[in-house]
Amino acid sequence: MQPPLARLSVHTITTKPWSLRQCVDGYRAAGVAGITVWRQALQPQGVDESRRMLADSGLTVTALCRGGFFVAPDDAGRQAALDDNRRAIDEARAIGAPMVVLVCGARPEVPIADGRRQVAEAIAAIAPHARAAGVRLAIEPLHPMYADTRSAITTLRQARLLCAALGDANVGVAVDVYHVWWDPDLEAEIAALGAERRLFALHLCDWIPEPRHLLNDRGLPGEGCARPRRIRALCESAGFAGFNEIEIFSDRRWAMDQGDNLRDTVAAYLASG
Amino acid sequence: MQPPLARLSVHTITTKPWSLRQCVDGYRAAGVAGITVWRQALQPQGVDESRRMLADSGLTVTALCRGGFFVAPDDAGRQAALDDNRRAIDEARAIGAPMVVLVCGARPEVPIADGRRQVAEAIAAIAPHARAAGVRLAIEPLHPMYADTRSAITTLRQARLLCAALGDANVGVAVDVYHVWWDPDLEAEIAALGAERRLFALHLCDWIPEPRHLLNDRGLPGEGCARPRRIRALCESAGFAGFNEIEIFSDRRWAMDQGDNLRDTVAAYLASG
Repeated sequence: MQPPLARLSVHTITTKPWSLRQCVDGYRAAGVAGITVWRQALQPQGVDESRRMLADSGLTVTALCRGGFFVAPDDAGRQAALDDNRRAIDEARAIGAPMVVLVCGARPEVPIADGRRQVAEAIAAIAPHARAAGVRLAIEPLHPMYADTRSAITTLRQARLLCAALGDANVGVAVDVYHVWWDPDLEAEIAALGAERRLFALHLCDWIPEPRHLLNDRGLPGEGCARPRRIRALCESAGFAGFNEIEIFSDRRWAMDQGDNLRDTVAAYLASG
Repeated sequence: MQPPLARLSVHTITTKPWSLRQCVDGYRAAGVAGITVWRQALQPQGVDESRRMLADSGLTVTALCRGGFFVAPDDAGRQAALDDNRRAIDEARAIGAPMVVLVCGARPEVPIADGRRQVAEAIAAIAPHARAAGVRLAIEPLHPMYADTRSAITTLRQARLLCAALGDANVGVAVDVYHVWWDPDLEAEIAALGAERRLFALHLCDWIPEPRHLLNDRGLPGEGCARPRRIRALCESAGFAGFNEIEIFSDRRWAMDQGDNLRDTVAAYLASG
């Protein structure tokens, strides 16, 4: 039997007030096995020092968050996004992250159907660079409440079909409990993702009823009504054997002592196992 | 050619600070043709006086809002909901409303799949009463951000399949721009609803990017990125010839002078036509 935290990874955004150094030290001390690094956590010390810090830590780097934001009203904006995503892939490779998570992007001034086409074209454009770098791309469909400014890709089905159309085994899907728990096709889509070998990542958190803020009022697993335990079981039944990544945006929790935040997070993970 | 406001109906919730009397007078003065009455607007003066007020107004009563909220953790709660929905149907009949709009309900403590079953059973239970009263039932799928406490029915497809399973021509669907604009199946589902004669109502408003509040920060048609003009055109192409109902929840607009609010609303409708 694996030790209980052997598959737990924590996103640095979960303890956003901490530097990468503090995340690494804090996660190790708490017995967490993996870390998903947000790009903003790389910036202060740069990629090289981050790479050394992570390599020395013994933590498994599970992913780099996040690429994407491909949608733009003009060619220059779209080109800048491609360039930035290629840099993200290089950063992932440098720090030993096997995958870049893609938040695909949306813009209010771009009709959503056009946004979807832009996303498909952009992923096709960066996919060869990702393959060459040995870095996988994980499309994360976002909750439809972010279809205005964050993601024209709002369902697992859309993400899965996008992968199928692309036909690149190096591109798959990240299932985030917060974004998909409401989906009537959830069971069928997770099963299909497993069967098609597209289930690349699982992000755990919870939906606190009637959130006070659209973005930053997410809960620990077990605090809400998204039933992360069930979604994790669906993923495991579909063959998922990767890390359970905890990713929680919460103004409330970011205002706490981050040691306490992390302790609660690990306890919630163990309780919701 | 019809006069430009001949198909405009306004929901009393749009001018929530107004009494039913003020709504009736205000809408008539503005040239609005129809009114969808929220039950809270009936309460102060009761159903009989409301009926007289509406009959004398010359306004077409387009619907009663809202029934539903069928999901409950226990039998007593579910029975109370059925009773209340039968009362809503009676009220609709009394005031001459041809339809009751259903916000189907959800509860954080009831798993969403169970909630969906409860909704299907409840609509089946009240459907005979609605048929006998000559009042149609319009299932309104809500945006997935309300799947915690307001609606386990989150997509047009779910609502349409629910109608098909029920097999009652008296039960159909209300398309609300705010709730469905993000849906990748939007075009196909509106077309299918038309073909299956289930397209009972169209609610217009707009999604203001990055709303400040999950519930009460909706925009006038044209203020946001939901593209209500396009969705109205899709409905019309699918054979919809009913009223264009404006329904806007907005703390910002409710804080205004309601004559100004209504004037802006009518102007936005004309501009987005």
